[in-house]
Amino acid sequence: MQGLHLTADLHDCRCDPAWLTDAEALLAACEQAVAQVGLKAVDRLTHSFPGTLAGAGGVTAAVLLAESHLCLHTWPEQRAVTLDVYVCNHSADHGAAARQLLLTLEALFSAAQVQRHALRRGTLPAPAGDTGSAA
Amino acid sequence: MQGLHLTADLHDCRCDPAWLTDAEALLAACEQAVAQVGLKAVDRLTHSFPGTLAGAGGVTAAVLLAESHLCLHTWPEQRAVTLDVYVCNHSADHGAAARQLLLTLEALFSAAQVQRHALRRGTLPAPAGDTGSAA
Repeated sequence: MQGLHLTADLHDCRCDPAWLTDAEALLAACEQAVAQVGLKAVDRLTHSFPGTLAGAGGVTAAVLLAESHLCLHTWPEQRAVTLDVYVCNHSADHGAAARQLLLTLEALFSAAQVQRHALRRGTLPAPAGDTGSAA
Repeated sequence: MQGLHLTADLHDCRCDPAWLTDAEALLAACEQAVAQVGLKAVDRLTHSFPGTLAGAGGVTAAVLLAESHLCLHTWPEQRAVTLDVYVCNHSADHGAAARQLLLTLEALFSAAQVQRHALRRGTLPAPAGDTGSAA
């Protein structure tokens, strides 16, 4: 379960607005990007939200990976997107592939500002670390 | 897109081993927990991995929420689970619901050790903050 979870929150996306609303195109781009970096998609799901007075509805796309998952949410009315790429390193270190996948997906949206975060997951810290007890 | 992303990485899960392998039961528990805390599931997906010489295969469960998503991965051979609950606060502050959802899911697995992490997402920091430029 040791792995790397990368997030990117994209603001002021200057891409073609269709990238924020077209679930089928987004999913195809996600799957292509996954394959390009050598990860393996095992299933996929999208959900398109209805439009509101503020404009077109957003999209959620999830790709389940042999190595964990990719999730993407769009907010077209805010021209905003959030991306998650989580890979476990069970069979190999997939960190480089995860970073490349995130960059490939970011490039779709031409965001003016991106907040990125990386979290190492599943590695128990030393006893003096921040491990809590289960409820 | 402003929201809260909570993760929990569960080690040494002492639950009934079926919770680490039964995709249908896991998904039902996730959906029940989502409803109990007042969040809204809009779609769901599971994937069961084949067993290996190390034992039964794990499960990925994803529940797409009106408020963002929940993802869960199990590693039965390691008695390990990772949980993600991400809620955006578009219509209201769902932080308390996200925390309760995570605790409810954690309780299924009776983990001896849990590593938790919370990430505020989608709020642009001040210019001197850690915002990067898009590639």
